[in-house]
Amino acid sequence: MSASDAVKFINPGDTVAISGFASAGTPKVVIPALAERIHRTRGNGSNFTINLLTGASVSTETERLLAEVDGIALRMPYQSEATARRRINDGRMDYVDIHLSHVAQQVWEGYYGNVDVAVVEVAGITESGELIPSASIGNNKTWLDVADRVILEVNSWVPEAMEGIHDVYYGTALPPHRKPLEIIRVEDRIGQTTFRVDPTKVVAVVETNCRDSASPLTAPDAVSEAIAGHVLEFFDFEVRAGRMPADTLLPLQAGIGNVANAVLGGLDRGPYRGLTCYSEVIQDGMLKLIKDGTVAHASSTALALTEEGIEELTANIDFYRHHITLRPQEISNHPEVVRRLGIIAMNGMLEADIYGNVNSTHVMGTKIMNGIGGSGDFARNGYVSMFLSPSTARGGEISAIVPMVPHVDHTEHDTQVLVTEQGLADLRGLSPRRRARLIVDKCAHPEFRPLLHDYIARADAQPGAGQTPHILGEAFSFHQRYIDTGSMRLS
Amino acid sequence: MSASDAVKFINPGDTVAISGFASAGTPKVVIPALAERIHRTRGNGSNFTINLLTGASVSTETERLLAEVDGIALRMPYQSEATARRRINDGRMDYVDIHLSHVAQQVWEGYYGNVDVAVVEVAGITESGELIPSASIGNNKTWLDVADRVILEVNSWVPEAMEGIHDVYYGTALPPHRKPLEIIRVEDRIGQTTFRVDPTKVVAVVETNCRDSASPLTAPDAVSEAIAGHVLEFFDFEVRAGRMPADTLLPLQAGIGNVANAVLGGLDRGPYRGLTCYSEVIQDGMLKLIKDGTVAHASSTALALTEEGIEELTANIDFYRHHITLRPQEISNHPEVVRRLGIIAMNGMLEADIYGNVNSTHVMGTKIMNGIGGSGDFARNGYVSMFLSPSTARGGEISAIVPMVPHVDHTEHDTQVLVTEQGLADLRGLSPRRRARLIVDKCAHPEFRPLLHDYIARADAQPGAGQTPHILGEAFSFHQRYIDTGSMRLS
Repeated sequence: MSASDAVKFINPGDTVAISGFASAGTPKVVIPALAERIHRTRGNGSNFTINLLTGASVSTETERLLAEVDGIALRMPYQSEATARRRINDGRMDYVDIHLSHVAQQVWEGYYGNVDVAVVEVAGITESGELIPSASIGNNKTWLDVADRVILEVNSWVPEAMEGIHDVYYGTALPPHRKPLEIIRVEDRIGQTTFRVDPTKVVAVVETNCRDSASPLTAPDAVSEAIAGHVLEFFDFEVRAGRMPADTLLPLQAGIGNVANAVLGGLDRGPYRGLTCYSEVIQDGMLKLIKDGTVAHASSTALALTEEGIEELTANIDFYRHHITLRPQEISNHPEVVRRLGIIAMNGMLEADIYGNVNSTHVMGTKIMNGIGGSGDFARNGYVSMFLSPSTARGGEISAIVPMVPHVDHTEHDTQVLVTEQGLADLRGLSPRRRARLIVDKCAHPEFRPLLHDYIARADAQPGAGQTPHILGEAFSFHQRYIDTGSMRLS
Repeated sequence: MSASDAVKFINPGDTVAISGFASAGTPKVVIPALAERIHRTRGNGSNFTINLLTGASVSTETERLLAEVDGIALRMPYQSEATARRRINDGRMDYVDIHLSHVAQQVWEGYYGNVDVAVVEVAGITESGELIPSASIGNNKTWLDVADRVILEVNSWVPEAMEGIHDVYYGTALPPHRKPLEIIRVEDRIGQTTFRVDPTKVVAVVETNCRDSASPLTAPDAVSEAIAGHVLEFFDFEVRAGRMPADTLLPLQAGIGNVANAVLGGLDRGPYRGLTCYSEVIQDGMLKLIKDGTVAHASSTALALTEEGIEELTANIDFYRHHITLRPQEISNHPEVVRRLGIIAMNGMLEADIYGNVNSTHVMGTKIMNGIGGSGDFARNGYVSMFLSPSTARGGEISAIVPMVPHVDHTEHDTQVLVTEQGLADLRGLSPRRRARLIVDKCAHPEFRPLLHDYIARADAQPGAGQTPHILGEAFSFHQRYIDTGSMRLS
């Protein structure tokens, strides 16, 4: 049926769980039609909001349309769109920002109430009624299982050749019925290639032919290249210390964005062959690494490719199918698997403090940027947790190294290596006082180092300074100065 | 040989890894002899320090003796003793406070350099040269494997009958060689009852006959009983919601101390039969629960019993051996097992803030109390993470609910239920603004509620307040007032 007919199955107050992870696999037409319906209903003086559950971020356009009409009462678990962000920060939209590996189990447990409708994009429907996933899996398996009503978008644009790349595991359960996940290597398959759905729940099938919308990546700048250089040097150091196999390292997880791309790009120039990646999102750069043999296998929950990347994938799908596995995000981010594989976790951050606490989410401690996403799943349980960022932001007005972060997403117990373009601070085995000096010397921008050292020295000199010396009245002086003057600089 | 001869195998600058977890299984005579030797050496004008690695806390006496002679350069991973605490807070002792599940793997990876000596208490040595563990396992398996030299204390006081209660798993490995841990139920055994040791590394065997030193528990006070009451009510709520089996709930983890004891004591009065516990420490109260049939099986890494508890255990060991399993702490706290079993994690806290961030370790953000211990292992990966505390401390001068915690050990993403004697705040599925109001109304002491609500209202009213509104200049006003006046109260 048409999208505008399909949205009649969505009622005010419904909890709506949709497909989509990064730019991949968001439903293309039903949600815009829902936004339109909400807009009309509101024009008639009635209220209409939904609770929106997703994999992670969804297509920018989709998130924006729903946010613009104030259609979302509660949003979970991750977003990265400007209008939604504004609504959340204005207190007009509830947003619950949780670890991506926790989403499926929390919904199953009923923390978000009943799921009324699932809107899931698929690549096709088999003769036996199973669903062929599209370019992301995210929480789709869970949405199809738990929702009362299911709306399918069958997107004929998704290359048929993609069939078989997915590994949908149906062995998860709630406690006390859980069993070991039998993934020993990144490439292990433990599930099936399709989703199951109870056909009596399917209230609408809408046909589409729309491409995903990944924006092309920009070439890494000098700062990103410098960060990547420090990371690659660290890998060499770990190999020399006998902690990683020389050719293949350990499975890599990298967030998305310029810095992650620069690191992945750098791998191609290193001595590595047969690397593996166990992460959330595969972007264009990964295809090149796979083609070269630098990466032997990449597992993720989403294929967020540009037009060019999709063409490359489609043209060589028989090759790539052997080197890529897409999994539900409860598996791509599962603490059990992350710990077992010994993942090298590389995630971006907004800022870190002198003791290694990391803020990934809240600008100046109050305004949400995106969310914690899967960073905690990987950082806590991986082999080594690295956090990467340029040492300054806003043309040098903001320091990424501060006395105390006003919001903590990763605690001092969970951050082992901090990297900026200035250098790399290896915090493993160090007490807080030693960490403080190292972080400032290695990672802070030279312009902010004297200010930070001055803070450390005065905090240390207080009587009864403690294990993590701070001057509480000054701990946020960098942030307060930025709020007051637009700069963390002194003058 | 004698303890004073054995300590000649410990050199200045050595990294010494010893047995001991809570009051259970600390070596009894070698470490006091080492403290004595350090004292004498220092009297002769030479320096003598070691790096000390343990399971968690060790016996208070042992920790104190070494700290008093300034014998510890670096301490890892947990302590709870006054002299050591003072040295750490004075900046005279390095202390690295990490998740207990991370200790063994970090030592294997070499983050703490070479381990020169292991000093491990055992209950006996078999004819084939295997070691019978004493009342705790902790990291002993790892210490015996990685140390260059091994000193054994064979403690004939440990009841022989305890043999067979241990499950020492030798299947752990470093990545990329890890395999699933085949623990599906709390009572599953996957290892052997003894430790292995390379006999050529054993440089000394010292015989002892000394009891462990658990202090008797005090009876729960009214505040602890009130907290326990809220927790038990929550269990009922979860059972009614269909999220836990009615008789057996899900495996329980409780920290140690008065509040945990009150909760466990309360279970005896509830409708439960055949409960399970998967935790770090078993104390006297657990024996009673096992005897009654309230608890069917308890797994931990330490048996920290009083004299009376040891007598009860010994007299009925053939019964208890079927209901208790002691494991290495890398298994008792393993994220894979914690997640799979779906543990109900109940840990103490110093304070929580209005958005649910929890400080477990640093008084006023600077002075270490004990350490994070295993709380993060259970809170992050369990089925539900609960944090418990009286609503005030120091006779009401300190509020356990504050605008912002000045040190974060458990982030807002990891705390689902907060409990004080005032009530229980169920934060699941709630956005930060909703959490703030609920935490204050349910958990804060009535005396501090108006101050907290006033802060929330003024923070919310700021232009561009954000998702987690704060007034940075006032976020620590409660703490600053306490530092200045000795009270968080206004007047």
